[in-house]
Amino acid sequence: MRLTDLIAAVNPFARLSTADAHCDLFCGVYYPEQARIEAESVLNCSVKYHDSDDEVFRDRCILVKEERAELVKHHLWVLWTDYFKPPHLEEYPELHELFWKATKLAGDAKKSMDPQVGQDLLDAIDEISVIFYKTKGGKPEWLTS
Amino acid sequence: MRLTDLIAAVNPFARLSTADAHCDLFCGVYYPEQARIEAESVLNCSVKYHDSDDEVFRDRCILVKEERAELVKHHLWVLWTDYFKPPHLEEYPELHELFWKATKLAGDAKKSMDPQVGQDLLDAIDEISVIFYKTKGGKPEWLTS
Amino acid sequence: MRLTDLIAAVNPFARLSTADAHCDLFCGVYYPEQARIEAESVLNCSVKYHDSDDEVFRDRCILVKEERAELVKHHLWVLWTDYFKPPHLEEYPELHELFWKATKLAGDAKKSMDPQVGQDLLDAIDEISVIFYKTKGGKPEWLTS
Amino acid sequence: MRLTDLIAAVNPFARLSTADAHCDLFCGVYYPEQARIEAESVLNCSVKYHDSDDEVFRDRCILVKEERAELVKHHLWVLWTDYFKPPHLEEYPELHELFWKATKLAGDAKKSMDPQVGQDLLDAIDEISVIFYKTKGGKPEWLTS
Amino acid sequence: MRLTDLIAAVNPFARLSTADAHCDLFCGVYYPEQARIEAESVLNCSVKYHDSDDEVFRDRCILVKEERAELVKHHLWVLWTDYFKPPHLEEYPELHELFWKATKLAGDAKKSMDPQVGQDLLDAIDEISVIFYKTKGGKPEWLTS
Amino acid sequence: MRLTDLIAAVNPFARLSTADAHCDLFCGVYYPEQARIEAESVLNCSVKYHDSDDEVFRDRCILVKEERAELVKHHLWVLWTDYFKPPHLEEYPELHELFWKATKLAGDAKKSMDPQVGQDLLDAIDEISVIFYKTKGGKPEWLTS
Repeated sequence: MRLTDLIAAVNPFARLSTADAHCDLFCGVYYPEQARIEAESVLNCSVKYHDSDDEVFRDRCILVKEERAELVKHHLWVLWTDYFKPPHLEEYPELHELFWKATKLAGDAKKSMDPQVGQDLLDAIDEISVIFYKTKGGKPEWLTS
Repeated sequence: MRLTDLIAAVNPFARLSTADAHCDLFCGVYYPEQARIEAESVLNCSVKYHDSDDEVFRDRCILVKEERAELVKHHLWVLWTDYFKPPHLEEYPELHELFWKATKLAGDAKKSMDPQVGQDLLDAIDEISVIFYKTKGGKPEWLTS
Repeated sequence: MRLTDLIAAVNPFARLSTADAHCDLFCGVYYPEQARIEAESVLNCSVKYHDSDDEVFRDRCILVKEERAELVKHHLWVLWTDYFKPPHLEEYPELHELFWKATKLAGDAKKSMDPQVGQDLLDAIDEISVIFYKTKGGKPEWLTS
Repeated sequence: MRLTDLIAAVNPFARLSTADAHCDLFCGVYYPEQARIEAESVLNCSVKYHDSDDEVFRDRCILVKEERAELVKHHLWVLWTDYFKPPHLEEYPELHELFWKATKLAGDAKKSMDPQVGQDLLDAIDEISVIFYKTKGGKPEWLTS
Repeated sequence: MRLTDLIAAVNPFARLSTADAHCDLFCGVYYPEQARIEAESVLNCSVKYHDSDDEVFRDRCILVKEERAELVKHHLWVLWTDYFKPPHLEEYPELHELFWKATKLAGDAKKSMDPQVGQDLLDAIDEISVIFYKTKGGKPEWLTS
Repeated sequence: MRLTDLIAAVNPFARLSTADAHCDLFCGVYYPEQARIEAESVLNCSVKYHDSDDEVFRDRCILVKEERAELVKHHLWVLWTDYFKPPHLEEYPELHELFWKATKLAGDAKKSMDPQVGQDLLDAIDEISVIFYKTKGGKPEWLTS
C-alpha cells in the first residue's frame, strides 16, 4: 500500500476533495508547487544578484524577480480563494493569516534583494503546502515518483 | 467644511495612511473603485445575456464576463495583501473573511449567468470599500467632485 | 432631487447614453477614473524616485512606472475608441487631439522621471473626464458618495 | 538605385523619420503590418465560422477572433500615438479619423461574424498603411524582397 | 543515502546542471511539473465538458481549456529552448521531436474535446519529464517528500 | 507574371498550404515578419543603449529589450509548432535546429547588450523566413507591394 492510500483512508476531507473538483471550472487542479517553483526563482534572483558585479545582469535580476514574485502572489491567491472551503477554515483557522503573510512576503521579495526574504517566502509556502496536502490526503503519485 | 475633512480630523489611521504610501513601490495608490468598476461590467454581462437571443452575443457575454471577473479578483487580492496592514486587521478583524467572500463571489460570477450573483459581488465590494475609506479618512476630492 | 438627476434632465446625450450601453459587449461600462488612478501611480513613481537614493528602489520606480503608464494608455485608448461616438465629436471636436495629447503624455511619462510630466498627464486626463461626464450627465452616485 | 532610395530623396519627412527613431524607447520600430496580420486572422475566423457546423469549432472562432481583434486595436493605437507626430497631422489631417474608424471597426469585428466587417477592417488598415509609408519614404527592403 | 544522491553520483550531467543554473537569468529554475499541471487542467476540462449538459458550463470548458493549453505550450517551449543544451541533445537526440510532438498535442487539445487527446498530452509531457530528470540527477527532495 | 506566381506554379507544398489553413483555428495566418519586427526592436535597444549615457534611458533599454525578446521567442515558437508539418521537416530536416538556435539567440539577446547578438538573431530569423516562404510559394502581394 502506498503512503497516499494510507492518508486517503483516514482523510476527513476525502468526500470534500471530490466535491472540490467540481467547484471551479478550473477543473479542481490545484498545486502549491506552482507558487513554490516561482518562489524558487525569486530566491535565485536575489542570490545571483549578489554573486555578480555586472550592472546589466543585476538590473535583470531585479526585473525578473519582480515578475516571478508577482506570479507567486497570483498562485497563492488562487489557492486561497478557489481551493480552500469553509470546512477547511474550521479545521485550520490560521489559513487566512498564513496566506496573508505569504503574499505579503512575496511583495517584500520584490522590494528586497536579501535572499533571506526569498527563503522566508519559500518557508511560508511550505507551511501552506503542508496543510493543503493534509486536506487532499497526500501528494499524487505522479508528483512524488 | 467637507465631509472628508471631518473624517480626516478624527481618523486614527491618519499617520498610518502616510506610512502606507511608502510600503509598496506601487506608490501607495489603492482604490476599491478599480474592483467595483470591473464588477459593474460583470453584472452587465449577465443582464445583457438574458436580454439577447443572439447566440454569438451570448457567447461573448460569457467570454467577457470571465475576463472581467478575473480582474475583479486581482484588484481585490491586491487591496487585501498590499494595502491592509496589521493595525487595520485589529480594528476590522472581519477583513479576511470579507475579502475571501468577495473573491469567491467573483469566481461564482464567472460560473453563473444570474445577475443576482453580480449584484452580490458589487455589494461585497461596497462592504470592503466602506472600511477602506474609514482607514483612509474619506475619499479624495478628485473622485467625488 | 440629486445633482445627477438635474443634469440628466437637461442632458442632450441622454438617449445616446442608453444606446452606448449596447454598442460594445463590454456592457457600456466606462470610467476615466481607470486611467486617472494608474496615472496617479505614474506620478508617485516619479516623486518617490527622487525621494530615494536606494539604487534598487529607484530601478523599481522606473519599472513600475513603465507598466502603469502603459495601462494609462490602454484605458485612454479604450475610452476614445469604444465610448465616444460621432455625435460626441460633433459637440466636442477637440476630443481626438485631447486623447492624442494625453496618450503621448503617458509615453513621455515612461521616458521621464520628472514629476511635472506625471502631473501634466493627470491634468490631460481631467480635461477628458470633464467632457466625458458632460456626455454622461454626471458621475454616478456610488462614485461620489 | 532602389525604389526606396528615390522615395527617400524626395521625402519631406526624411529628417523627421530619423528623429522618430529616438522619440520612443521602443527604438522607432513601427510597422502597420503588425495590425494587418492580426486583422487577417480576424477575417479568417469569420470565414471559417461560416464554413463549419461544428459547435465547438465555431465557439473557438468567436474566442480567437476576440483575442486577435484586441491585438489589432493595440497595434493601431500604438501606431497612432507613438509614431505619428504633429508635422504628419499637418500633412495628413485625416489621420485621427482614419485611426478612430479603424479601431472602431476592430471592435465591430469582435461583435460580428460577418466577413465583410473583417474585410472592411483590412481596407481601413491599408488606408493607414499607405500614408504611413509615404511618411517613411517607402517599405524597407527586407519586407518587400 | 537518498535516491537523489545516488543518481547525482553517477550523473554525467552533474557539472552541466550547475552550469545550467547560470545560463539564463531565470536562475536555472526549470520544472516539467509546470507544464504537466496545466495539462491536467486541460484534460479535466474535456472530461467535465462531457459530464455536463449545461450550455454555459460547456462553453466555459472550451474557454478555460484554450487558456490552459496555451500555458502548456509556453512551459514546454521554455523548457526546450532555455533548459536543454547541446550536450543533452547529443545524449537524447529525440528531444526536438518529443517537444515538437508535445506542443502540437497541446494545440490539438485546444481543438478537441476528446479526453484522449488530453491524456496523450500528459503522456507526452511525462516522456520529456523522464529525460529531464535524468539530466538533473533526479527530482529535488522538496517535490517528492 | 509576378515572381510569386512563378513560385506558386512550382511549389510542391501548394496543396499542403491550403490544408495548413485548416489545421489551427488560428486560421492559418503565419508570418515570420512578426518575429523579425520584434527582433528589430531588440537590436535597436542594444544600439541605443550604447548611444546614450542617460542612466534611466539605459535602464529602459534593458527593460524593453527583455519584453521584445520574449515576443520574438513566442512568435518563433508558434511558427515552429503550429505552422510546420511533418512533410516540411522531411524537406527541411534542419528546421528543428534552426528554431532551437534562433530562440536561444533571443534568450541571449535578453542577456547581452551587444548589438551583434541582435544582428545574429535577425539573421537566424531570416534563415527561417527563407524556408517558410519556399513552403508557402512566396510572399503575399499585400506584403511586398
